[in-house]
Formats: sequence, structure tokens, C-alpha cells
Amino acid sequence: MSSRIRNADFAAKITTAEEAAAMIQHGATLGMSGFTGAGYPKAIPLALAAKAEAEHAAGRPYKLRVLSGASTGPELDGALAKAEAIGFRVPYNSDATLRGQINAGDVDYIDMHLSHVAWMTQAGLYGKVDYAVIEISGITPDGKLIPSSSVGNNVAFMQCAEKIILEVNSWQSASLEGMHDIYYGTRLPPFRSAIPLVKPDERIGSPYYEIDLSKVVAVIPTDIPDRNAPFAPPGEDAQAIAGYLLDFFQHEVKMGRLPAGLLPLQSGVGNVPNAVMAGLCEAPFEPMTAFTEVLQDGMLDMIDAGKLRMASATAFSLSPERAHDLNERAHIYREKLILRQQDISNHPELVRRLGIISMNGLIEADIYGNVNSTNVMGSRIQNGIGGSGDFTRNAFLSIFLTPSTAKGGKISAIVPMAAHVDHIGQDVQVIVTEQGLADLRGLAPRKRAVEIIKHCAHPAYRPMLEDYFERSMKDSFGKNNPHLLNEALSWHQRFVETGSMMP
Amino acid sequence: MSSRIRNADFAAKITTAEEAAAMIQHGATLGMSGFTGAGYPKAIPLALAAKAEAEHAAGRPYKLRVLSGASTGPELDGALAKAEAIGFRVPYNSDATLRGQINAGDVDYIDMHLSHVAWMTQAGLYGKVDYAVIEISGITPDGKLIPSSSVGNNVAFMQCAEKIILEVNSWQSASLEGMHDIYYGTRLPPFRSAIPLVKPDERIGSPYYEIDLSKVVAVIPTDIPDRNAPFAPPGEDAQAIAGYLLDFFQHEVKMGRLPAGLLPLQSGVGNVPNAVMAGLCEAPFEPMTAFTEVLQDGMLDMIDAGKLRMASATAFSLSPERAHDLNERAHIYREKLILRQQDISNHPELVRRLGIISMNGLIEADIYGNVNSTNVMGSRIQNGIGGSGDFTRNAFLSIFLTPSTAKGGKISAIVPMAAHVDHIGQDVQVIVTEQGLADLRGLAPRKRAVEIIKHCAHPAYRPMLEDYFERSMKDSFGKNNPHLLNEALSWHQRFVETGSMMP
Ligand SMILES: CC(C)(COP(=O)(O)OP(=O)(O)OC[C@H]1O[C@@H](n2cnc3c(N)ncnc32)[C@H](O)[C@@H]1OP(=O)(O)O)[C@@H](O)C(=O)NCCC(=O)NCCS
Ligand SMILES: CC(C)(COP(=O)(O)OP(=O)(O)OC[C@H]1O[C@@H](n2cnc3c(N)ncnc32)[C@H](O)[C@@H]1OP(=O)(O)O)[C@@H](O)C(=O)NCCC(=O)NCCS
Repeated sequence: MSSRIRNADFAAKITTAEEAAAMIQHGATLGMSGFTGAGYPKAIPLALAAKAEAEHAAGRPYKLRVLSGASTGPELDGALAKAEAIGFRVPYNSDATLRGQINAGDVDYIDMHLSHVAWMTQAGLYGKVDYAVIEISGITPDGKLIPSSSVGNNVAFMQCAEKIILEVNSWQSASLEGMHDIYYGTRLPPFRSAIPLVKPDERIGSPYYEIDLSKVVAVIPTDIPDRNAPFAPPGEDAQAIAGYLLDFFQHEVKMGRLPAGLLPLQSGVGNVPNAVMAGLCEAPFEPMTAFTEVLQDGMLDMIDAGKLRMASATAFSLSPERAHDLNERAHIYREKLILRQQDISNHPELVRRLGIISMNGLIEADIYGNVNSTNVMGSRIQNGIGGSGDFTRNAFLSIFLTPSTAKGGKISAIVPMAAHVDHIGQDVQVIVTEQGLADLRGLAPRKRAVEIIKHCAHPAYRPMLEDYFERSMKDSFGKNNPHLLNEALSWHQRFVETGSMMP
Repeated sequence: MSSRIRNADFAAKITTAEEAAAMIQHGATLGMSGFTGAGYPKAIPLALAAKAEAEHAAGRPYKLRVLSGASTGPELDGALAKAEAIGFRVPYNSDATLRGQINAGDVDYIDMHLSHVAWMTQAGLYGKVDYAVIEISGITPDGKLIPSSSVGNNVAFMQCAEKIILEVNSWQSASLEGMHDIYYGTRLPPFRSAIPLVKPDERIGSPYYEIDLSKVVAVIPTDIPDRNAPFAPPGEDAQAIAGYLLDFFQHEVKMGRLPAGLLPLQSGVGNVPNAVMAGLCEAPFEPMTAFTEVLQDGMLDMIDAGKLRMASATAFSLSPERAHDLNERAHIYREKLILRQQDISNHPELVRRLGIISMNGLIEADIYGNVNSTNVMGSRIQNGIGGSGDFTRNAFLSIFLTPSTAKGGKISAIVPMAAHVDHIGQDVQVIVTEQGLADLRGLAPRKRAVEIIKHCAHPAYRPMLEDYFERSMKDSFGKNNPHLLNEALSWHQRFVETGSMMP
């Protein structure tokens, strides 16, 4: 362990997770590291969960307010939720237990644009941050911190927090050192300036966190692995979606609307993005770049295939095999990967300037192209908006990818009216399902509806959508965005009542 | 007239509006100047309307595709709509006749973020622009164009258009010369760079348009006035709203969350903003700045009162008295006013960097703070989203101001579920009605509902909202964002059926 904590001042603060947890009182606000299962603290949350259970058993309240980068892992959201120790959570969650508590009305959850959390924390909108609890991968002899497998909101949390607790995780690859680009130029207004980045591969900061040692109250050595999910090979639907998208890209390049190396790619994680990246490994585009949130297996494959020149993100999200591989061949990847804080990776200024191609999943889209990314049936949160709002509104080309149905066909991903809206029609340019691709650019709502129903809806639901649209065109109060108010949400209501949107 | 057209090459192209209109064929795409009733072409659209009527009378089709900055005036949208000469319209409209045609399903209308129209036009998303039809206030001896009372999308339209038609309007004040700041640094990706503006009062361009003379096919002298609406003194509700807002600002300054001179202000137009600006004339803030779309009477009042240091916008929207006044005292105002193109005035990069305080109106907000700015009862367009999306998502403080009811109390501006969403809850921080102010920052959806219902709803609707919310908390499918799907839009449906949301 001492090989990772190479500074005596920090080494002097080494303690156990239990002792650190003992300091953290009921009601405390914690700014934790962690983004998509990477770089989250593990030992302290487990100790906090144990403490919460003991407190609850003793009849005392113990709930924490937890801020993070995005989703974390079973040791953090999972264990704390199981111990009923989370009262308030910002800005993203994908843990099933916590999701259940949020949807039961027991946990206050603020689902927030990921690029906004750092400044909102600095502006005090989430209250005083008592502790920053941050995983790092090492400490240099001169007391600089080597970031871990995600950066997230760590800079802001350590700046704002009264006290800092560090987990130094020796499971993390030593080769991470040098991969990060930590920018210290962000301010609250009126002191903001231009962010000096005009290409995805530019470095504008330092590879290290530099912090105030006097704020550090505990340093905990750990070696617990990240939540690295196994890679699932793309299914048939995902491959069909990727196929339509790749054809579209080729067409856009041919028409001169996209450069031969496309534009910096942003991609969500999951089965469909995996299929797209597999397709891009074979596609005839000049070497591409990525300016995205998360580095997945597919991006490393694209680098190996000579198709991706470099990728910038705020976190890794690799399969265990690929995580191993990254370590083995760090000398190759180090030059091509940059990890930044999420208020830079997702910054509207940069997304707009770079002209990103954004590719994200959705829960449902309506016939006019309004997209629900978060609340199933309008009320039950799945994960959160994440960075999808940061990217789609400012993208040069904003694309949503989804199977046309969910839950074995019982749910149509194309509905008359979205039961919750995260992305308004103006921000949704292309929708692709396994049925086809709807290019909505330059179309008014009624024309969008025709394209979406025709190209994206599943045949089982298409006639019902056509029928709704036709009757809306006749009977809607206004015909700019025609709707039948007493039917608009009836598919969702039917699902809630019967378990299927099918009549 | 020659005093305004001081260049022989341009003077040689002087012709009549009728001759210019004669060139413009059925189906043409026109990029027209004009923003909020200021600086739109007048003679050509009137001639085009006459031509359309003649063509229609002769049994020939004649419809145009019209792009503009934002809303225009009776000579443009009004006359062309009356002549049924508009088939496609981007990005904003407030003309009643055209609104009727859009809502009847007869005109394709793309209601688009105002900061996106320039690049989307350049990227070809609205097709080839056949003619830019641009009002200017003069031509210098060396052939530079002096912009008019709005800038809008004129730069992009003149760059993209195959041909350019200029209206040189001598009604516009000669004192406009020097007030504009036309930036020529915008590009399509991958060639975008940082916009070098870090303070609202910086100038980053030239006071003139510089164009390719060979594209100019007609120069038409006119002297038709802008649509300058008379100033309406703020009513009681507007004053109450302004009162709550000013108290809030003072509190935020006291808490150290806003500087003593606030942050650059963005404000919509109308009765409520007028009341806010009247209040700001008396308020104890250090001299403020504005970085906004439109310069209203109230801003000139604030300058006169020594409360506004300067204002940056893309257009004027003054009463006839104030327009006169601006001419008389141009030497005073010239130093304090800057007009920019709308892709700069509304640019997400700048809005975020400057940390704008945005203040806009709405049609309705729901109990979770999702805002509908555009579609009455979810389907009938009022105006359009305008710049409200550009500003609210990137603002430091995003505020919506509205009376709590519309149509004499028959409509509640606070509803169970917004029937259309333009601004998602994440982007809506404060809502103010004449009933009070709801500060939604740092609150999860269920807590937002409590604040909105308590502080913003009209007493006549408050118990109904409480009842809906309470039952949703019990019976909703998910309780993150509780809703009863078969009731969520029932208030709107009731209005459509009975003319009132009241049961
Ligand atoms: C929308 C989102 C949940 C889709 O996830 P995905 O992994 O691409 O797609 P899946 O089809 O596997 O769906 C995930 C879950 O949502 C469910 N789901 C998807 N669409 C649904 C719908 N219309 N109704 C109900 N459930 C739906 C799936 O059934 C699945 O549930 P399960 O885990 O219980 O089987 C995901 O993309 C997301 O969280 N997006 C918001 C954040 C974002 O866009 N981040 C990208 C980076 S900026
Ligand atoms: C939403 C908006 C229409 C409100 O307008 P306003 O002038 O502030 O407020 P008013 O109360 O005068 O409302 C304007 C009209 O909308 C109607 N209206 C307002 N709320 C309504 C509601 N909930 N249901 C039905 N009609 C409503 C009013 O009755 C009025 O109609 P009328 O002209 O037939 O009398 C206006 O702010 C807008 O167009 N906003 C979108 C663009 C924007 O925000 N621009 C700001 C600059 S970025």
C-alpha cells in the first residue's frame, strides 16, 4: 500500500473506514466520487451502511445526503440504500434498491443535468458539503492526488467540502497516472471565462488533484474492484439499429453535411451503443474522435481497429476483461485517452463548439419527437437524465437509439404523447429503432409524426398510432401539435392497469 | 433617400418592391430580417402579398417558405398570411392570422430555439435559401451596410442566400450607426472556436454587415415604421409579481448568492417584465447590466435612472414615444447599447459563461415545475419557444413570471401536468405569480410540488391541486414524480369541452 501513498503527510492520516465513518453524523451531506460504476469510494460507504444499521437498531435516525458524479456501485448506493441510509440523492442513480426507495416516495431524488452539479454545489444549492469522500488511485511524493477511474464532480466536491476523506484504491491501475486532465479554471459568475478547448484531444489542466491537506481528515487504503459489468454482445435489434445509423452517417458524409471522420462522438452505454461501435470498427470513416461521458469496451475496440484517434470522457465503464487489457497495454492507450471532470466533459460550451454527434437511449418518444429518458409511465424513475440534456440540446446532430418496444412487446417505445418529457422536439433530430430511421431535421411537428410512425414504430403499434394521429388531425383543439387530451396518455394508463399497452 | 444609400454600386441596384417581388417564385425560401417587430422588411412582403393574391386569383399556387429572426410585423407575417402566401415558417411567430393558419394545420411551423436557427440554416436543414430579404438603415460610401433596429439572423441569411434584396429604411434612426456589433467568427463544426466575449459590454465584431455586392439583386428605399407597440403601464398582478421577485433578489444578495449588481439580466417582453424593470429602477442594486434578446422601454428607463450600466440585445422593442426618445438622445444611449446577431445574444456558451438571470413568461407550469411556454392545451401554438430555452437551461438563475390564472380565471397557470413541455423541471428554478414565489432550487419533485401549489397557485385552484397531489402520492404508479394518468390532463380536457378548467 505504501507504494500508492508516497507522501508522509497523507500517510500520517491513514485510518480505517470504520473510524472515518464514525465521524460522519446523521444528516451529513457527502460529496462522493463515482461515475457509472467507476471510481466510487467503497470502504467508507460499506462502513457507513454498517453504522446506519447499528444506529437504526438502536432506534436512532441515520440518513445521509449523497451527492456523486453519476451512478456508483453496490458498495455505495447498493449498501447504503439497503441500510436505509440515504435520504437525499443527487444527480443520478441506477441502483435497483435505491430506485425502489425513490419510487416508493421514501428518498428525495434530484435528477439533474450532469454538467450543472458542480456549479450548483459551489453555489450552495445542495447545502453545505460536510465531507468529500473521494476515491483516488495514489498520492505522489509531493502530495498530489492521482485520480481514479472516474473524475466526475471530484474537483468541486473537494473544493466545497469542509473535510475530505480519501480512499486510495490499489486495485486501480497504476497506469492511470497521466491520463487525467483536471481543469482549475471554472468559477461562479461573474468570474467565468472561456474554456480554452477547441479540439477533443487538447489538454487544458493537470493530471492531478491539488488540494488543501489541512482539510483531509482520513486516508483509507482499499483494494476493492470497480463495478465492471461484463460485456454483452449486441443482439439482433441492436445490430439493426446500428445498421440504419451507419447508413445514415455514410449518407450525411456523401451529402457533405458531415466530415469524412464524422464529428466527435458522444455515446450512452448499453447494448445498442455497443452495436454502433462494433459497426464503426468496420465503417469507412476517417479516424474519429469521441468527446463523451464514458469510455466503453467498444471505444477501445475502435482504437485497436485504428478507427478512433482518441477519446475524451469523465469515466471508464469497461468489462473486467477490457479493464485488465487497459492495464496491460496502458502505454498504448495513455496517449489516446483523456479523463476530465464532468462539468468539462459535458459542458454545453464545449459540446456546442465541438459539434458533437450525440447518441443516447430513451424510455419513449412521442409521435412529435418529444423524448422521455427517465420516468416510466411518467412517474417511476428509471435512472435519470444524466448528461443526455447537456449533449442533445447542444449537439450538431442529436440522435436517439432504442428498440421500438420494451418488456417483450407489452410497451411501445413510440407513444401518442410522452408521459414525461426530458428532451423537447427541438432537441431531437434523429430517432432510430430496429424498424428504421426517422430524420426529423427541418420538419414541422405534423411531418415529424408521419416519419416517426412510419419508420420507428413497431408494426404491432403502428396502426394504433396512425389512427390516433389521424383523429387528432381532425379533432384536436389546435393542430400545430395535434392531440386528443383524453386519449393522449391512455396507453400508459392501460399498461398500469393491465400490464400491457396493447388493448 | 440618397443620404441613406451613399454608395454608387448599391444605388445602381435601386428598384421597386414590385420588381423585386416579381423575381421571387412560388416555393422560394426567404431568409428575412426582423425580430419582435423591429427591423423587418416591409415593402417587399407587402408586394409579395399583392403578388400572391394576384397569382391565387389567376388560379396559380403561390406559397413561400419564410425564415426570420423572430416575430415580425403586420406588413410581413400579417400581410403574407392574409394572402395565404406562407407555407412554411421558422422560427417564431406572434401574428394572429398566421397563428390561426398554423393551428388550423395549414402552415408548417417549426418553433425553434432562436440561437440554433443561424447554424441550422448554414447546415442546410431548412433547404437552400433563395433570397435574403434584409432591412438595413443605410449604406456607407464604402459599401458597408448599417444594420437596422434588429440584427436577428441577418448575417447567416446573407451568407447562405443565393441572392440578397435590401430594404433601406429611412424611418430608422440614423443614430443606429455604431450601435451594432456584428461578429464574423461563427463557423460550422469542426471549425468552431471560443467566442471571445466574457463581459456583456464587450464588442467582438464590426458595426456593419459586409457582404458580397454581386449577390445583391435589388435595393429598395422605404420609410415604413417598425411595429412599435404602445407601452402599457403594469397592472396590479404584474406589480405583485415584481414585488416578490425584487424581495427575492435582495435576499439572494444578502445571502451572498448574487453580487450587489446582480448578474446580467435577460427578460422577455410584456406587462410583467415592465413591472420588474420599473421596480429595478427603484431597487438598491449596484448598476446592473442586461444580456438579453430585446431592449424594451423599461431598460431605457433603468439607464436613465442610473441603474443599468449597459444592455446587449439583438433587437429593440420600444413604444413609439421611446423610439422617438432614442433618436433624440442617441448620443447618450449609443455608448450603453449593443445589438448583436441572435446566435450571439442567445448563445448557450455566453449565457452560461456570463451567468445570466433569465426572466420569462409561460403558458402554464405543472406542480413539478415543468413549463409549457408555447402550446395552449398542448396543441394550439401561442408564439413559440423563442430564446427561452437558450436562456433558461444555461442561466445561473432561471425564473418564470406569470399571473396564476388566464382568461379571467377560467384557466389555471398551475396545472397537474403540463400538456406540453418546453422547459423541463431541471431548468426551472423559480416561479413567481401574484400569489407568491416558489424557490425550487435544490428540491426533489415532491418537495417542488408543495412549494408551487402553496406559493404560486390561485386560491380558486389550490385545493384542487392539493387534492390531485395527495391522491397521486397514494395511487401513482411511481412516486418519484407522482401522477394519475387518467386525470393528469383532465383540466385541459375540461377547458376544451366547457371553456373553463373549473369543474
Ligand atoms: C433510457 C435508458 C433507461 C435506456 O436504457 P438502455 O440500457 O439503453 O435500454 P434497455 O432497453 O436495456 O432499458 C433499460 C430498462 O428500461 C426499461 N425500459 C426501456 N424502455 C421502457 C419503456 N418505454 N417503458 C418501460 N420500461 C422501459 C427496460 O425494460 C429495461 O428495464 P429492465 O432493466 O427492468 O429490463 C437509458 O438510456 C438511460 O438511463 N438514459 C438516460 C441517461 C442517458 O441518456 N445517459 C446517456 C449518457 S449522456
Ligand atoms: C408564454 C407567453 C405567451 C406569455 O405571454 P405574456 O405576454 O407574458 O402574457 P399574457 O398573460 O399576456 O399572455 C399572452 C396570451 O397567452 C394567453 N395565455 C397565457 N396563459 C395561458 C394559458 N395557461 N392558457 C391559455 N392561454 C394562455 C393569454 O390569455 C394571452 O392571450 P390573449 O392574447 O388571447 O389574451 C409569452 O411569454 C411567450 O410567448 N413565451 C415564449 C417565448 C419566450 O419566453 N420569449 C422570451 C424571450 S427569450
